Amino acid sequence: MKKDEDNLTFPQPSLIQDATELVASYPTVALTVDCVIFGFEDNKLKVLLIRSDLEVYKGMWSLLGDVVRDTEELDEAAYRVLTERTGMTNVYLDQVRSFSSPGRHPGGRVVTIAYCSLLNIQHHELKTTDNELHWHSLKSISEKDMAFDHKAIIDKCYKWLQKRIQEHPLGFNLLPEKFSLRELQNLYEAILNVELDRRNFRKKFFSMDFLEDTGEFEEDVKHRPGKLYQFNFEKYEKNKRKWIGIDF
Amino acid sequence: MKKDEDNLTFPQPSLIQDATELVASYPTVALTVDCVIFGFEDNKLKVLLIRSDLEVYKGMWSLLGDVVRDTEELDEAAYRVLTERTGMTNVYLDQVRSFSSPGRHPGGRVVTIAYCSLLNIQHHELKTTDNELHWHSLKSISEKDMAFDHKAIIDKCYKWLQKRIQEHPLGFNLLPEKFSLRELQNLYEAILNVELDRRNFRKKFFSMDFLEDTGEFEEDVKHRPGKLYQFNFEKYEKNKRKWIGIDF
Repeated sequence: MKKDEDNLTFPQPSLIQDATELVASYPTVALTVDCVIFGFEDNKLKVLLIRSDLEVYKGMWSLLGDVVRDTEELDEAAYRVLTERTGMTNVYLDQVRSFSSPGRHPGGRVVTIAYCSLLNIQHHELKTTDNELHWHSLKSISEKDMAFDHKAIIDKCYKWLQKRIQEHPLGFNLLPEKFSLRELQNLYEAILNVELDRRNFRKKFFSMDFLEDTGEFEEDVKHRPGKLYQFNFEKYEKNKRKWIGIDF
Repeated sequence: MKKDEDNLTFPQPSLIQDATELVASYPTVALTVDCVIFGFEDNKLKVLLIRSDLEVYKGMWSLLGDVVRDTEELDEAAYRVLTERTGMTNVYLDQVRSFSSPGRHPGGRVVTIAYCSLLNIQHHELKTTDNELHWHSLKSISEKDMAFDHKAIIDKCYKWLQKRIQEHPLGFNLLPEKFSLRELQNLYEAILNVELDRRNFRKKFFSMDFLEDTGEFEEDVKHRPGKLYQFNFEKYEKNKRKWIGIDF
């Protein structure tokens, strides 16, 4: 910090010879990653949490996180945390953003980088239940149940997810390969947390021309069996501009 | 049931009593922010750089960056850097992502968070030229001219920008209030680094129905004066779904 002030006084500073000395003079912080793993099951959006292991947050819930190691990239750290905590390996994580409020950790300065994923719960088995790891309905989580600023991190990642699912067809990974329009609408309603007009929703999806009629119908349902559709990812890749953004 | 019996029934791993001791045991890293400021001028996309002040990068260029202070949030640090280095204050910065490769700084472990902005160069005066601060044409910058991993950071932010400008009407902030379709197409061609079909481009923009004919024409141009248009931001806000993504 002192160095900066000096630089301001001398606008054309001589070059810094010793890079190692320079970095050694920098303030440092502990850096963590936190994974917000959203899952979809029984028409509900859920999030994966563990019990906090800090006395000060006794009984409260926490995201899956850990300190970044000296030799680790942040992405590596995030995948390591997910594997260590859940046993899951085939999950794609997106880096969302950092959370760096100086008071966010009761033990001192800790900056965290949030990662996010969305998966079909039935496709991913939790290989451990340490620290009561399990899926919580997103709607059931309140500020007071969550350790640190983890409720705020979840909220931010949820907004990010809502935007993503409107702009990209990532929702189809959460459905069976063949799905009814009712199932598709349920998915969007659960994630966007809105009620959608049935006709409008269908019209919009058909106008994009990525849904293919399989000729099959739902079985073992209480309501009138609906037609089953597939999403044509190949067609989508060739013609992404037709994805018109599911902006309801 | 009494509390003790609860504990007997559901044994919990022992909780960490001292959060401060815990954080003190964490490895720490130096954390910096780097600002990738893109500007548009003379139909060219440019980026704001300074001379590196490290001997090891003598003569090379560097992004606008600094160490994050102990009491600072990352966003704060990014805005501080921008103001200190350029004198600009009315610039919006987006956090893009972190760069954390262990070898990215010759002086030791430094993790950096990249911020990005896009502005109209003529609207923003540089209040300082310390360290040879000036705008570089993006096309003129090569890997070997850049310190650290700053070329890779610029590349990543450029991709991010290209995506943003296709998904949102942020390009209009770079044009005069009233602009010709030629100017609009030049802007998209410069940022997307492609040549666009004139008819297709116009058809796409008119189909979105956000452009308004001002009834005026270009003046003092060598070619046949084109009609001048305005972008209706109000209409856009009410009807974002009609922004169909400029995906060429």
